[in-house]
Amino acid sequence: MIKSILLVNRPKGKPSLDDFRIIEEEDPQVSEGEILLKTLYVSVDPYLRGRMRDEESYIEPFKLNVPMESMMIAEVMESMNGNFKRGELLSGMLKWKEYQTSKGTGLNKIDITRQPTAYLGILGLTGLTAFLALEKIGKLQEGETLLVSGAAGAVGSVVGQIGKIKGCKVIGIAGSDEKIDHIQNKFRFDGGINYKSTENMKKAISESCPEGVDVYFDNVGGEILDAALANINKGARIINCGAISIYNETEVPTGPRYEGTLIRKSALMQGFLVRDHVKDFGPAVKQLAAWLEEGKLKYDETIREGFENIPQAFLDLFEGKNHGKMIVKV
Amino acid sequence: MIKSILLVNRPKGKPSLDDFRIIEEEDPQVSEGEILLKTLYVSVDPYLRGRMRDEESYIEPFKLNVPMESMMIAEVMESMNGNFKRGELLSGMLKWKEYQTSKGTGLNKIDITRQPTAYLGILGLTGLTAFLALEKIGKLQEGETLLVSGAAGAVGSVVGQIGKIKGCKVIGIAGSDEKIDHIQNKFRFDGGINYKSTENMKKAISESCPEGVDVYFDNVGGEILDAALANINKGARIINCGAISIYNETEVPTGPRYEGTLIRKSALMQGFLVRDHVKDFGPAVKQLAAWLEEGKLKYDETIREGFENIPQAFLDLFEGKNHGKMIVKV
Repeated sequence: MIKSILLVNRPKGKPSLDDFRIIEEEDPQVSEGEILLKTLYVSVDPYLRGRMRDEESYIEPFKLNVPMESMMIAEVMESMNGNFKRGELLSGMLKWKEYQTSKGTGLNKIDITRQPTAYLGILGLTGLTAFLALEKIGKLQEGETLLVSGAAGAVGSVVGQIGKIKGCKVIGIAGSDEKIDHIQNKFRFDGGINYKSTENMKKAISESCPEGVDVYFDNVGGEILDAALANINKGARIINCGAISIYNETEVPTGPRYEGTLIRKSALMQGFLVRDHVKDFGPAVKQLAAWLEEGKLKYDETIREGFENIPQAFLDLFEGKNHGKMIVKV
Repeated sequence: MIKSILLVNRPKGKPSLDDFRIIEEEDPQVSEGEILLKTLYVSVDPYLRGRMRDEESYIEPFKLNVPMESMMIAEVMESMNGNFKRGELLSGMLKWKEYQTSKGTGLNKIDITRQPTAYLGILGLTGLTAFLALEKIGKLQEGETLLVSGAAGAVGSVVGQIGKIKGCKVIGIAGSDEKIDHIQNKFRFDGGINYKSTENMKKAISESCPEGVDVYFDNVGGEILDAALANINKGARIINCGAISIYNETEVPTGPRYEGTLIRKSALMQGFLVRDHVKDFGPAVKQLAAWLEEGKLKYDETIREGFENIPQAFLDLFEGKNHGKMIVKV
């Protein structure tokens, strides 16, 4: 028997453990053309919250009473498919099951000389998100000021380091003094703001970015976005990459209207979904891997252990309990 | 003695006649290198409201107790400058005075075979705004749906016609049934919505644009923008060109937060200021003039008469009393 984790309720507001159920099911049997995969590492990410809603979005909603899915690293245990060999490690979108079969579609072999979890983070969707959103929307110029929220998170920490590589001044926003120290010491941010201990974010940003904000990479939305917008320069680019502060809201949240500011500043706000840029993944991973080898990019991982702890690891993302990429080792 | 119109109060909320004062002053005297100009036509535009605020914006605020300024057509009455001849017509940013002197900087000679007021509208900043905002942000593709607010206005009516030239489905939003008929009959819009008689704008847009909105050209902001955003397609472009519905607000208005929608739809919202694109004016005017001659572009003007009626003409913009470009003939 193997374990599998189902979504059993669509959460209203903040998700809870009750929204998931762990069941046992028969061992999967491999048919011709298939492979048997053993789950090694499971990525949990804030965007999964969006897929739990039953509403039209950029990606199909999760169905109730079937296994959840996310990006994972799995090992080939048996192969009846000529493209894969026993012992190979694959990354891809897979189900929250201890073992599963697959035809291999959409799965990629990973370079086993590297730490496999890198393919869920810095060389996976989080690194690609940081890199491609900056390329496509941010268009950083040397000497500009880059402000990043969720700065100690998986995407934010890569964004800040790319900012430094491009010669920008980089300021990060995060939720504890310890995270602020960390992004400055480990990731070379020029400064940081602890939003939890700061009363007036607009003023704090203005003090940290005396020349104004040219690019704001937003992972959180809400009031921090408002405060950032109050400090943008003419021609600023705002990347709407995530809105974790409003994902759990049950009503459409309100805030100050942005259109006046966007006009006065000839500024741009654009939503970014990494899935729209699959054709650019190849060269982007190559660049990220090169920076990683040159020591210009570092990353954090929070690794939890145990298959049954996947739901709790996911819930902890909304409490900021991760440093960098949250991964469950099975 | 000549008349001159000063700004004497910074309006709180909606401007009124009391914010202006008409004074008489000495006849201007021409010095070496200068020309004497007689005001013929004065353009009044919603963006002037922004310059009446004493706050940082894309263009310097108007000073109190000095003449207002806007785009005008003037005739050279005397010239002590070798670049200009008596009788030539010039367009440019000039003061609200019956006569004034100038060194000629920033003034352009206009082709007197055309109706001179075209240079304040279709071949001036309004036509350039429509054309360049669509080129730079809208990037219309044949077969897409273009939604335009302020559709019977100076900019909106040109936007819709360019949409038709580009092979798009074009729906306009305006404030009376008569304006809706007009944009369909004269400007070839495919449909229109009278926002004043429509209770549920979100539903009305969804019915008029069953395939969703690819480009929304916004001249008004506020709740109409909210309703448009609720109907955008993936990859939509929203051009924030004007926000007349909130220009007179004294508090920062609030509304539903947009970041969630922008992310889900990979959509873009960008403020557009025509002054950022001066280097593109030449070829843009050439294209607009060609379409005008081919009969593909038409335009409306509301012409008021009398120098002292300039302030009232400006106030009437906020009541939607203009059809197309509002101009005062002196």
